[in-house]
Amino acid sequence: MSKAVFYHAGCPVCVSAEQTVADHLKDEVEKVHLGEQGGRVAEAEQSGVKSVPALVIDGQVFHINHGADLSALK
Amino acid sequence: MSKAVFYHAGCPVCVSAEQTVADHLKDEVEKVHLGEQGGRVAEAEQSGVKSVPALVIDGQVFHINHGADLSALK
Repeated sequence: MSKAVFYHAGCPVCVSAEQTVADHLKDEVEKVHLGEQGGRVAEAEQSGVKSVPALVIDGQVFHINHGADLSALK
Repeated sequence: MSKAVFYHAGCPVCVSAEQTVADHLKDEVEKVHLGEQGGRVAEAEQSGVKSVPALVIDGQVFHINHGADLSALK
């Protein structure tokens, strides 16, 4: 089984939403909070991550734009 | 098992890349080519899809920005 890495920066609304994607993947998903694990920013950059949240699967980078609903903030 | 819907418009580079995401989901994934199935654009809009490619899982919309590598075009 391949491994997926989910990079994020801790925005609670986005993490909650994108958790959905992680939960629906067949792979083991490692979650990396780049705000807390600054030492891994270089690794993320080398993988091709340009912005967070991003999902890296088998070396391919997917930048995910959920666009949180305003209802999540009420 | 829930169902995921993957909306796209047939860009071959992007479809190839995003196929990776679809293949890694646990769910059954329905692929809808909105360029060919224009009758489903309204349905996509109602789901909250603003642009393609987009993935709808359990009613949540995720706009995916892969940013195809130029190497895929060589």
